[in-house]
Amino acid sequence: MSFVTHLRCPRCGRTYSADEAHNVCECGAPLLVEYDLAAMRRLSPADLWPASRGMWRYAPFLPVKDPSNIVTLGEGGTPTLRAPRAGAAARIDNLWIKDEGLNPTGSFKARGAAAGVSKAKELGIAAVAMPTAGNAGGAWAAYGARAGIQVHIAMPKDAPDINKQEVRRYGGHLTLVDGLISDAGKLIAAEAKAHGWFDVATLKEPYRIEGKKTMGLELAEAWGWTTLPDVVVYPAGGGVGIIGIWKAITELRAIGWTAAPMPRFVVVQAAGCAPLVKAWDEGKDVSEFWQGAATVASGLRVPKALGDFLVLQALRESGGAAIAIPDAEILRFGALLAETEGLWAAPEGAATLAAAAELRGRGWIRDGESVVLINTGSGLKYPEV
Amino acid sequence: MSFVTHLRCPRCGRTYSADEAHNVCECGAPLLVEYDLAAMRRLSPADLWPASRGMWRYAPFLPVKDPSNIVTLGEGGTPTLRAPRAGAAARIDNLWIKDEGLNPTGSFKARGAAAGVSKAKELGIAAVAMPTAGNAGGAWAAYGARAGIQVHIAMPKDAPDINKQEVRRYGGHLTLVDGLISDAGKLIAAEAKAHGWFDVATLKEPYRIEGKKTMGLELAEAWGWTTLPDVVVYPAGGGVGIIGIWKAITELRAIGWTAAPMPRFVVVQAAGCAPLVKAWDEGKDVSEFWQGAATVASGLRVPKALGDFLVLQALRESGGAAIAIPDAEILRFGALLAETEGLWAAPEGAATLAAAAELRGRGWIRDGESVVLINTGSGLKYPEV
Repeated sequence: MSFVTHLRCPRCGRTYSADEAHNVCECGAPLLVEYDLAAMRRLSPADLWPASRGMWRYAPFLPVKDPSNIVTLGEGGTPTLRAPRAGAAARIDNLWIKDEGLNPTGSFKARGAAAGVSKAKELGIAAVAMPTAGNAGGAWAAYGARAGIQVHIAMPKDAPDINKQEVRRYGGHLTLVDGLISDAGKLIAAEAKAHGWFDVATLKEPYRIEGKKTMGLELAEAWGWTTLPDVVVYPAGGGVGIIGIWKAITELRAIGWTAAPMPRFVVVQAAGCAPLVKAWDEGKDVSEFWQGAATVASGLRVPKALGDFLVLQALRESGGAAIAIPDAEILRFGALLAETEGLWAAPEGAATLAAAAELRGRGWIRDGESVVLINTGSGLKYPEV
Repeated sequence: MSFVTHLRCPRCGRTYSADEAHNVCECGAPLLVEYDLAAMRRLSPADLWPASRGMWRYAPFLPVKDPSNIVTLGEGGTPTLRAPRAGAAARIDNLWIKDEGLNPTGSFKARGAAAGVSKAKELGIAAVAMPTAGNAGGAWAAYGARAGIQVHIAMPKDAPDINKQEVRRYGGHLTLVDGLISDAGKLIAAEAKAHGWFDVATLKEPYRIEGKKTMGLELAEAWGWTTLPDVVVYPAGGGVGIIGIWKAITELRAIGWTAAPMPRFVVVQAAGCAPLVKAWDEGKDVSEFWQGAATVASGLRVPKALGDFLVLQALRESGGAAIAIPDAEILRFGALLAETEGLWAAPEGAATLAAAAELRGRGWIRDGESVVLINTGSGLKYPEV
């Protein structure tokens, strides 16, 4: 089933076992999951799980060894929709939207939670803890409930109400924090240490990224493996999704399923919280903590991402771009998307359309290029925006 | 692609063309879509659309003739999840939940809207109008926006806020009515007639049922075609879903894909609005208008369904049952489902678990029987419940 071999630090190269619970590397960097790519060269798309709906179709690329440990609510397998009318408005002929709002709990966080909770179950972990800007907390609480694993969540007290409701309804333990996700992170890390809960903060556990990776596998499959989209536009809070898509395509190239160029990645942030964009504009390898983060796109209210250096690396290696969108433009393009395509996107998703229109205006997106927007969640979770 | 032949009245047998816009039969009954089942006997499951995600995989069973008329947001293909922990609570070993909350617009109404709007596009219809208890309005507004078809919706003014927001965000025209869906229906029928809009009220247009039918096709495929679930538990407002599932399996039997017995259907309604349950208990063929309809499950607040006689026929022919659940039990089983399986169901979906537990207690559901609950929508659309 799985070709997982070990965990590896992308900064210092130290390796760790994938059969024990690990957080970050001794050097402080997040750990990535490694696979036996040489052995995987013998695989073909016919070896994917044909009967399986959604992301477990890609089980050979995932870290769970025993299928009985899979904790699923039907995540993944989301549609990639042509968007001709929004495309006309943005002057992009070949525009697509991958609608992650059709996941369980209404956001792409379900993929990460499914992989993370499944692996936690495999490792015998009884309780996990994490900070969240909102949607990840809902997702982990749901998968924790399904697995029978205790979930402790810390969330900014001004996070969307629906996310608080989710955690409580799924029986998760919710702590509200007077501050941002970074403050919630400090609190829950201390609590986790005190109580022996496994800390599953973004990129402090290595497996959620493997779930996010399946977005990249699905895009590659939708494009027929041998070709890939030219541009992938992604709204980055913690940035795990973009690292995941980049990792997926890197692995597909390593095992010979595609020789197509890596898509050019676009990181989209809100003008009110744009640490990755600032670092990119200044040519830096890591971002700085963003003071006074504020945006309607709650998922983008992440002042400093642990994986910032990996996101910036993905941008550099792919010839990508980073762009910040003011809230007013997020709202305007969100309305346009709903009215032209019948898709009520999360504000984070709406920001990707604004970004694509801007990059097309600048000529960065060229005639005829295929452009995929990642709508990370359903607008149903943002009725107040 | 499609094997559609004509429309037929299930009450008086009159037939109509499927290439013209029709509402109900001259006799007042809803029209059903007929297919060339003799020709379809030559098909096998290999003739389904393998590359197509979701309900258009079943295009030969659907009424759209030209693929270019398909209006899709990625509906269908929802997961059928094992529910072992909720099953233990209900003492049903072999319990499954089909989670329709993973559809676009967060409910199973997306299937009906996709089929209905696609066929409206094929027939050259420019504007449609309908009353709704809530979710259908959101779905039709979304698909209308995607198709470029004008959508006029009338909704009770005390329908969920999120449904009103949906219609408006998708650019639909919303009229709020001081009353129930039945009052909204009277108003919008008159407006439609005055303005020449096509009236697409439930079962006043023949095609939404074909979209709902795909739930039955998916269940049959999930069970391997030759076998079928023993019991399907469905929360009935208008009851189109149960008619659709019943029609799907009838067609599959007619073309020789399955010889398994029809699943026993269970109609679940709320104690505060249970016209079908009352008719069933009294052995009647049609229901009476329910006075003073009131329930937290807004989708079940339908005092009289045009297709009541078809629902009751499906119950009789399948050896089914009908059961009414008080709101307090809906809430209790909704909480149980979220805490044990990580699934925040619509209250309509939660009612099916309450019903299954009750029928198991009575011995109506027997040891080892496979029981499928249809969760018609995501709890995210009911934050106030």
